[in-house]
Amino acid sequence: MGLKFEVLKTSDGGGRRGVLSLPHGDVQTPVFMPVGTAATVKAVPQDVLETNGASGVGARIILANTYHLYLRPGHELVRRMGGVHKFMGWDRPMLTDSGGFQVFSLSKLRKISDEGVEFRSHLDGSKHFFSPEHSMDVQIALGADVAMVFDECVETPATWERTKQSMGLTHAWAARSKERFEAEKHRVPWFEERGGQTQNLFGIVQGGMYADLRKESAERLVEMEFPGYAIGGLAVGEPREVTREMIARTLEVLPKDKPVYVMGVGYPDEIEEYGKMGVDMMDCVLPTRAARHGLLFMREPGSSTVVRMNIKKKEYAEDQRPIDESCTCRVCARYTRAYLRHLYSSGEALSAVLNSIHNLAFYLDTMERVRGELAG
Amino acid sequence: MGLKFEVLKTSDGGGRRGVLSLPHGDVQTPVFMPVGTAATVKAVPQDVLETNGASGVGARIILANTYHLYLRPGHELVRRMGGVHKFMGWDRPMLTDSGGFQVFSLSKLRKISDEGVEFRSHLDGSKHFFSPEHSMDVQIALGADVAMVFDECVETPATWERTKQSMGLTHAWAARSKERFEAEKHRVPWFEERGGQTQNLFGIVQGGMYADLRKESAERLVEMEFPGYAIGGLAVGEPREVTREMIARTLEVLPKDKPVYVMGVGYPDEIEEYGKMGVDMMDCVLPTRAARHGLLFMREPGSSTVVRMNIKKKEYAEDQRPIDESCTCRVCARYTRAYLRHLYSSGEALSAVLNSIHNLAFYLDTMERVRGELAG
Repeated sequence: MGLKFEVLKTSDGGGRRGVLSLPHGDVQTPVFMPVGTAATVKAVPQDVLETNGASGVGARIILANTYHLYLRPGHELVRRMGGVHKFMGWDRPMLTDSGGFQVFSLSKLRKISDEGVEFRSHLDGSKHFFSPEHSMDVQIALGADVAMVFDECVETPATWERTKQSMGLTHAWAARSKERFEAEKHRVPWFEERGGQTQNLFGIVQGGMYADLRKESAERLVEMEFPGYAIGGLAVGEPREVTREMIARTLEVLPKDKPVYVMGVGYPDEIEEYGKMGVDMMDCVLPTRAARHGLLFMREPGSSTVVRMNIKKKEYAEDQRPIDESCTCRVCARYTRAYLRHLYSSGEALSAVLNSIHNLAFYLDTMERVRGELAG
Repeated sequence: MGLKFEVLKTSDGGGRRGVLSLPHGDVQTPVFMPVGTAATVKAVPQDVLETNGASGVGARIILANTYHLYLRPGHELVRRMGGVHKFMGWDRPMLTDSGGFQVFSLSKLRKISDEGVEFRSHLDGSKHFFSPEHSMDVQIALGADVAMVFDECVETPATWERTKQSMGLTHAWAARSKERFEAEKHRVPWFEERGGQTQNLFGIVQGGMYADLRKESAERLVEMEFPGYAIGGLAVGEPREVTREMIARTLEVLPKDKPVYVMGVGYPDEIEEYGKMGVDMMDCVLPTRAARHGLLFMREPGSSTVVRMNIKKKEYAEDQRPIDESCTCRVCARYTRAYLRHLYSSGEALSAVLNSIHNLAFYLDTMERVRGELAG
């Protein structure tokens, strides 16, 4: 038993305030999960992650990318180091993706068969093969609290026929992922140390932008019985209404007592909206990636509208205000826009550090507020 | 009145345990000052600087470089932001160099005359002119607690004749620096806010590697009466014995009741040695620059010998020990060599952050121990 999900309260809109208990601790939901690509949330020290945001509670769960850690430093090395938690000095829950998304988006010369995907490393061009079984072996070696089935990410836009065919492959791979996971899950590095607890494998609903396929995919996965369900293949360029519609249609089918995770979203207003619709977990590189490009999230004064400030603009050169006057994060408490602009313009390493801390605090605080509203 | 220097105890070897009181606070001496080039100690957030090291006291005084801040964002902008302390969110003492060293080492097409130095910016090739008067104006606008006279840095090696000639120019520039500083010091951004306190201008002893010239330079500067004296032009490639000899000869001449600052040193064993000889202040980019190249300071187990570990080496790939098992810094408390190697090899931004924090903690702890020995 590695997962318990308790729904404390469900609002009229479907949003639920819950607690997700995992081998490395409890997570208050709905939750935003910062992305720690190569076992590091880029530019942010782990102790800052733990205490970031107004509540000081910080990030309770973070992601790591299977594809990146498989290539470097290698999953067997991470296993020998005791798993990804010990490797990176992070003792709270973690989630790994299946590696599929990066195989499809980063690597070259992919060859997809029913068996799996052959690809070349984006680092050195070396040849690799990922199958559902191999993804499970890699994720078990990494040892995150939550692992994901290996799925095909269909190109976008895709026809109904192409999407249905891809979805079929995804379902077959989900079944194979589950079979391998069940057979091998006791090999997780912390199995004995945590009293025989194991990781939790989540299924992934696909079906592109077709409501009927989303429904079918969700039904098939629910039959397979996973402890949690992800909704994948969204936020890939489609209009916001479509994303919302696909999430809504899928939520109707998924069981109410299992956590639901929408992968790769989104903007601050999106994570708020989906959280209030009943999505329990979300992740996105946006806050950290935008930060490295000098794009800082803030609310327009006296309004709840979220905007992105481009800190490199000349107009901030002598602006003594914090990024967001209503933000209580450690960056806004100490530094001015003028200073942050100077750091960015000068190419200083501290720029990415401080910008990332602010943007993540902004996201964590947004979800903290949403949880408050759902509980209230 | 902007400076008070109290010597609490002097050891047989000449080392003194003291307290330097400056407009922005007290500094326990001897002290190592991290270098915050462009108003940022590269990759290290200010709150970490404040609490770094085993004692948790952190850095009590840091440097900023006049040349860099003059070019970007510009000293008048920094003045309008309230001075460099407010600009960077650092409320403890600071020191600025004169800009001379960077003009001589970084910029192109220098033309030196008795009047000053014409040079081209290393950033955009634009033409600039620094004189002693201009250096003072810039440093007063920046508003560090300690400013430095504008001096010529002679090339190395240099003949006795060339060194003597350069020293003459340095002395003339020191007198002009002092004159301008006295006339303009009330223009420091925090003059009124700090009850009429001003910055403190330190003289710089030059004289190359010639003991007689060092003595002459020190005597000339003491006649000019500065509140503190720096020893410049050392650690520029000469053997360690020569550095030590030049410091020793200069210390003999300098007054015992004024702080002495050796610029640009050094390795951990050097700052310890010079601290025990009677040097009160030192600065160096070495801990942060080495950190960015993956070079980490540590003591050999069971010995006091300081070595530099090259974290990129393959032998650390699965090394679960901290950098230095006797170090109590936050990096050694949390992260393994294997993880730090992974961050460095993967080009992750967190690598420079954590490596810099460790190396600075190592330096700060070294001086904390030296202060303890001098007080004991």
